[in-house]
Amino acid sequence: MADRDTPDTQMLIADMGRRARAAATVLAAMPSPAKAQALRAAAAAIRASQEAILAANAEDMAAGKANGLSDAMLDRLLLDPKRIEGMASGIEAVAGLEDPVGSVLDERTRPNGLVLRRVRVPIGVIGIIYESRPNVTADAGALCLMSGNAAILRGGSEAIRSNRAIHAALVQGLVQAGAPADAIQLVPVTDRAAVGAMLTAEGLIDMVVPRGGKSLVARVQAEARVPVLAHLDGINHSYVDRAADPAMAVALAVNAKMRRTGICGATETLLIDRGFADPKPILAALAEAGCELRGDAEVQALDPRVQPASDEDWDTEYLEAILSVKLVDGVEGAMAHIAAHGSHHTDAILTEDADTAARFLRGVDSAIVMWNASTQFADGGEFGLGAEIGISTGRLHARGPVALEGLTTYKWLVLGTGQARP
Amino acid sequence: MADRDTPDTQMLIADMGRRARAAATVLAAMPSPAKAQALRAAAAAIRASQEAILAANAEDMAAGKANGLSDAMLDRLLLDPKRIEGMASGIEAVAGLEDPVGSVLDERTRPNGLVLRRVRVPIGVIGIIYESRPNVTADAGALCLMSGNAAILRGGSEAIRSNRAIHAALVQGLVQAGAPADAIQLVPVTDRAAVGAMLTAEGLIDMVVPRGGKSLVARVQAEARVPVLAHLDGINHSYVDRAADPAMAVALAVNAKMRRTGICGATETLLIDRGFADPKPILAALAEAGCELRGDAEVQALDPRVQPASDEDWDTEYLEAILSVKLVDGVEGAMAHIAAHGSHHTDAILTEDADTAARFLRGVDSAIVMWNASTQFADGGEFGLGAEIGISTGRLHARGPVALEGLTTYKWLVLGTGQARP
Repeated sequence: MADRDTPDTQMLIADMGRRARAAATVLAAMPSPAKAQALRAAAAAIRASQEAILAANAEDMAAGKANGLSDAMLDRLLLDPKRIEGMASGIEAVAGLEDPVGSVLDERTRPNGLVLRRVRVPIGVIGIIYESRPNVTADAGALCLMSGNAAILRGGSEAIRSNRAIHAALVQGLVQAGAPADAIQLVPVTDRAAVGAMLTAEGLIDMVVPRGGKSLVARVQAEARVPVLAHLDGINHSYVDRAADPAMAVALAVNAKMRRTGICGATETLLIDRGFADPKPILAALAEAGCELRGDAEVQALDPRVQPASDEDWDTEYLEAILSVKLVDGVEGAMAHIAAHGSHHTDAILTEDADTAARFLRGVDSAIVMWNASTQFADGGEFGLGAEIGISTGRLHARGPVALEGLTTYKWLVLGTGQARP
Repeated sequence: MADRDTPDTQMLIADMGRRARAAATVLAAMPSPAKAQALRAAAAAIRASQEAILAANAEDMAAGKANGLSDAMLDRLLLDPKRIEGMASGIEAVAGLEDPVGSVLDERTRPNGLVLRRVRVPIGVIGIIYESRPNVTADAGALCLMSGNAAILRGGSEAIRSNRAIHAALVQGLVQAGAPADAIQLVPVTDRAAVGAMLTAEGLIDMVVPRGGKSLVARVQAEARVPVLAHLDGINHSYVDRAADPAMAVALAVNAKMRRTGICGATETLLIDRGFADPKPILAALAEAGCELRGDAEVQALDPRVQPASDEDWDTEYLEAILSVKLVDGVEGAMAHIAAHGSHHTDAILTEDADTAARFLRGVDSAIVMWNASTQFADGGEFGLGAEIGISTGRLHARGPVALEGLTTYKWLVLGTGQARP
């Protein structure tokens, strides 16, 4: 029953959507300094509310322990003074980002004198659906506000008390600074029906961004009738070409897989050109760094520590210290493997041959394609975008790391002097 | 039964999708001159196949008459030498458009030396679902090809013979010029299950563009699991401000409604400021141009020809010589009416007051917002975009008239010299 939409929940979301639309109208016209000022006030209110936020979080933590949450989930849920300061300074960092709203994408004058101007505007109302990390309440709310969008936030039930406390502080700051109280709303109920109601709120919510594990994203993509900006898999490849620098190949293979194994930019499959002189040091370095290697007989022959790979390995995002390794015939072989098994997220070539690199950069159909760099750089912060709302693996609207610009659209202004169409 | 997905139809669409993906890989790497050359060869083949196309069309027309198609539908279906020449020259016009693929959207160098470049690339595989106009086969196919996308076309059953003949000519020209035969595919079956299979072909079709009447677009939006670039309603407003030039107001009100009443850019509701000195000449000119006027008592008092408006009139896209008229309190009243009843397509203000115009241009949340111009200019050709694949009333990805650029996305290239992430 709790999974079904109920009329009450639908009415609640519809009411929140209408209030969000009204707030969005105000936000769309707010100058950048006013939005930045509202965010700085929200950051100050977060700092001032530290005690209340920690008390709410302690209740969530106690309930989480009683409900048997895993240690990893409890760590994601936990707030401490340092993490609260991180939220506040994160909001201030968003306030310092360049505001894309109002920028002119292009302008042309037609022979009849009409001036056409394409101008960035906010999307409108953004729904964010997330899991146990309460800091998303602050991060996502700040990004939506700075880009002139109203936000409807729906966090995980295990973090509801923390989220309420953070949200209360945010709104207190916003209102003090003259921004609408409904600019950032938190869904007050925790039943899953609220998610369903958000996903079908056509005309009320303009875009939904799921932030969480695969099962959440998959549910959102399966049920949504509103557009979704989603990140699905990061089955990323690093390809060592025959013309790769051997020392760089060792260093980047280890970094791309092992620096942090749990992030979406981590390499999951290493492709090595059969023409590459000496793959053994790469495998040895990975094994010595603690990585489990999986490959077919050809790869197993290179290093006794390589385990047999199954068919599924080529389509698996491990997110841990496991790497599938395959030998391929040159850049064409690498591109064929990536086309068959990749997830269009991030893929890299290591080579000193510029023509081969150009072939790979052009031919690989992924959001991010790299040359002689670690796939772990697939991150909005590393791209210089400031905070990111997520990394999109879809093809439309925004691709790769999505920050403020991805939360905007445009409209056409047509400036005339009385032109009628002949 | 014919409306249901059948395994056979799903397999057919899946097979077409796989072949389209292979063709898209080739098209994505084709230089602009090669794509233009392929389109010119396709145009030549259309001209050379005139006899076969006319013969096929005659069969469709005979079947259409036997099946009792309306005169309007038969007119849309009809081909003659002039319309075939129009198709061929339309393809040539697309071949002359600037190719957006490969253009660099932005480039930045990070402190660690990584160069980030965002480059336009084709979306991939585009599905076009349309009704009885066979010229869409040529228009849409050409736009997809010039933007480097493979197209899967599904036309109306009443035009299937014409579409097959046009498609055969297109492919003949493409192949002669060295483009892949699967660059433009036509769904060979006419049952509605093919539409359902296209709408759920996630991973095979990257975007669907419905081109047709409201019932088609509504079905596509309701059923689609793949992204849709759709045009729904054009409930457009022209607002005559108190500071409007009276002669311009008469001329543009008549042009915006009556130049062509059946196009999506036609004005459907006229809003007049209560502060505007003399609305009577506007109503008189519209009535004399043959327009039926509908309004409330206040408007009826201005002209005896005004009929009573019902509540539905404010939410109706007439697409004929009928106009709803309402008096409002200034630009704020106009914006409130548009927010409540508009369809986010095209809305215009007529005023000599630049501040009032700026308020309207900023505050109206529509794809196209005009100042002192006829809403009938809402058209890709009038915008100087060349041919358009459609006008989007959605907010994401592309908004307003969509031409080649709207059929592209981007990818991030990251160019390094061996950078590992610290």
